[in-house]
Amino acid sequence: MGTENSLLNKAWETLENTIIYYYDNPVGTVAASDPSVESLNYDQCFIRDFVSSALVFLIKGKTDIVRNFLQQTLKLQIKERQLDFLEVGRGLMPASFKVVHEKGEEYLIGDFGDRAIGRVTPVDSCLWWLFVLRAYVKATGQSSLAHQPDFQKGIRLIMELCLVARFDMYPTILVPDGACMIDRRMGIDGHPLEIQTLFYYALRTAKELLLPNQENAYINQAVEKRLKPLANHLQQHYWLDLDRLTEIYRYKGEEYGESALNQFNIYSDSIPYDALSRWLTETGGYFAGNLGPSQLDCRFFSLGNLMAVLSGLTTEKQAQELMNLIEDRWEDLIGTMPMKICFPALKGRDWEMLTGCDPKNRPWSYHNGGNWPVLLWMLTAAALQSDRPNIASQAIDIAAKRLPAEEWPEYYDGKNGRLLGKEARKYQTWTIAGFLLAIELQENPQYLSWIIC
Amino acid sequence: MGTENSLLNKAWETLENTIIYYYDNPVGTVAASDPSVESLNYDQCFIRDFVSSALVFLIKGKTDIVRNFLQQTLKLQIKERQLDFLEVGRGLMPASFKVVHEKGEEYLIGDFGDRAIGRVTPVDSCLWWLFVLRAYVKATGQSSLAHQPDFQKGIRLIMELCLVARFDMYPTILVPDGACMIDRRMGIDGHPLEIQTLFYYALRTAKELLLPNQENAYINQAVEKRLKPLANHLQQHYWLDLDRLTEIYRYKGEEYGESALNQFNIYSDSIPYDALSRWLTETGGYFAGNLGPSQLDCRFFSLGNLMAVLSGLTTEKQAQELMNLIEDRWEDLIGTMPMKICFPALKGRDWEMLTGCDPKNRPWSYHNGGNWPVLLWMLTAAALQSDRPNIASQAIDIAAKRLPAEEWPEYYDGKNGRLLGKEARKYQTWTIAGFLLAIELQENPQYLSWIIC
Repeated sequence: MGTENSLLNKAWETLENTIIYYYDNPVGTVAASDPSVESLNYDQCFIRDFVSSALVFLIKGKTDIVRNFLQQTLKLQIKERQLDFLEVGRGLMPASFKVVHEKGEEYLIGDFGDRAIGRVTPVDSCLWWLFVLRAYVKATGQSSLAHQPDFQKGIRLIMELCLVARFDMYPTILVPDGACMIDRRMGIDGHPLEIQTLFYYALRTAKELLLPNQENAYINQAVEKRLKPLANHLQQHYWLDLDRLTEIYRYKGEEYGESALNQFNIYSDSIPYDALSRWLTETGGYFAGNLGPSQLDCRFFSLGNLMAVLSGLTTEKQAQELMNLIEDRWEDLIGTMPMKICFPALKGRDWEMLTGCDPKNRPWSYHNGGNWPVLLWMLTAAALQSDRPNIASQAIDIAAKRLPAEEWPEYYDGKNGRLLGKEARKYQTWTIAGFLLAIELQENPQYLSWIIC
Repeated sequence: MGTENSLLNKAWETLENTIIYYYDNPVGTVAASDPSVESLNYDQCFIRDFVSSALVFLIKGKTDIVRNFLQQTLKLQIKERQLDFLEVGRGLMPASFKVVHEKGEEYLIGDFGDRAIGRVTPVDSCLWWLFVLRAYVKATGQSSLAHQPDFQKGIRLIMELCLVARFDMYPTILVPDGACMIDRRMGIDGHPLEIQTLFYYALRTAKELLLPNQENAYINQAVEKRLKPLANHLQQHYWLDLDRLTEIYRYKGEEYGESALNQFNIYSDSIPYDALSRWLTETGGYFAGNLGPSQLDCRFFSLGNLMAVLSGLTTEKQAQELMNLIEDRWEDLIGTMPMKICFPALKGRDWEMLTGCDPKNRPWSYHNGGNWPVLLWMLTAAALQSDRPNIASQAIDIAAKRLPAEEWPEYYDGKNGRLLGKEARKYQTWTIAGFLLAIELQENPQYLSWIIC
């Protein structure tokens, strides 16, 4: 236990060293601090990367850094309707920010994707921001920050951006490819699960935090009306188990009219039945990765599936079936490092077509079937919430054996995650924070209420 | 000439028989009147299908049906912000409408995609509606209809829908797959050329038709500010010729920062260089089908390319290079029936992945490389506008030999369009109207000004 404690203390120390200061106040953590490679934008604070750090800081009573983070990133949110419509939409938050020092002054500069590789849009940032805000309120037991007028406005703008006029017919939201943790092209354009589950979490958070006043009346009503249809849509149309698979397998194509059974006109041939009918266990189930006209992406995406549990989107039965699947497909989904970001990897022509031949996302590497230790905390939370503590403890044990010794890599490669990620940085902040957080949750499950809706 | 006239008269007669009446007033035309097959929704008036009919009616002085169409479809436009956010966005127009008779009353019912196969969204409808409105104003020489408050509001709502808060960084608009004439999944999600050129046309139309009053001030400003960046974006980033191809071929991947040359992080390997370097002629060029992060869809889509000319989006040089390419690749793009909807067809795994194994869109059939006679009028207009009348007359001659004899099919199949479309209806209204319109434009080029921005 002594060694273990010293290991945790060391990890905590490393995490503290990643803190970014703005006029001497802590405001976030850098993405990575690997001294052996050029920093590029890894010296910035990414909103989605900061989530696990924020939770650890809250648990440690360091609420100031989280409050500062929330306040400063709120200031970076686009507040005005853009007259030239050439900037991103009002309500959006940057993917990342950095502190720039100039002539004795300090500035916070946000990156909305205009400097990122491939110019992808960080749709998830504003949704994760709400996640952190809710955790802050729960941890401090005080709603005063969230009830400040600027915060109320920020929440309203996020909801407006997600809820206003759109070009499609579903309760889900339409986004471009690479708009979330998978921030490179990976065939997840349209209505990817990760964004939809974060959106559901955000709706529930907004419902909790928006005051019932006149100014919020319109948005409160809209939020209320969207929750149920969104949950139904995901539970019914994204969920896959053997029964559902059989149903889709026997669909007729080309049905016309409102009563069509095959509403999305999915052709059986487009579903990898052979592989899926063997991979899906009798008692297992999960949410598919994406759904659209003639499209059902049957890949298993971990973040979306785990967030479905955390957001309260899953039925009790679905949560258990998901945990069954993770247990029964342990080698594929956990392997030697929790957890696979998506399964299976795109290969051959599929990889060429859907990633645009992205060498960083080669099969079983990085986003395309790599293993990401940051997912450990979400797995832990979802497993504990589903009363399956063994899954959490086994996963933590696996991670504990490798992460500190291998200096907290960003990701792992290979079908079972045995290889250190080809371009992975070491001392990746969310790897460290995610690990510390998983252990905290395991030891003090009362913190789950900060995370689970 | 006698036979030819009688042929045209017969076609005109057939077109008149497709007219739909609403309380005894003509309001549109049915999509097809093939007595040999079940009508499904082909007995409805599709907004995009009516465009060629509208132009022919205007030329024939039958302005009433066009005015009625504009008025009635405007009434079907979604006018209110949807509180439950479960209907399509405010501003959208239906894909189609039909007249329902019930207890002696008549009702116009719009279909916004909720009954269509695969639940696709008709994003192009509102853009085509503006196209028809502009032609009506030009043909009648009167702006009074367009200046009515309800029309001004309709235009504003369309512009708002296209211009407001969004999830991406480009001047183009993000749409789901199948949101235009290609209304089934075909790998054209994101920022497809067809929608972007129609959008550019719509912006220019709005600029012409929106009054400079207080109520319109905000939208007028937004329209003005979007035009130039959109044109630049398409001209620079979508345009492909041998010089540009070479440039992309030599791109470096993974550039970070605002000054990145390869802004969209396109990997050379994802471009079909071998085929393209042979297919693209020395003097030819065209607009690529789609652009996004790590994605450049190099298929040639006819409607978008022709609409680029009609909307005034092309530079003079680009228009000539496009016409050169059509002339030099005549067998591929015109073949035995003008004109190929897209080239080349998706095959094998590409077809499986991007269409979801859609049997209607098998290679060289329907949207996936079929030949669509309705495109003849756009080809004629673009060729005449580019001072290349030979292209128009040759294409019309080819169509004239087959269309009346083969009873005006919806589309043709096969690499060169020799086969009658596998599921094509006969007496497809826009095939008839498109043919009549092409001949009218050829004989009376002054009508071009109704079509060309």
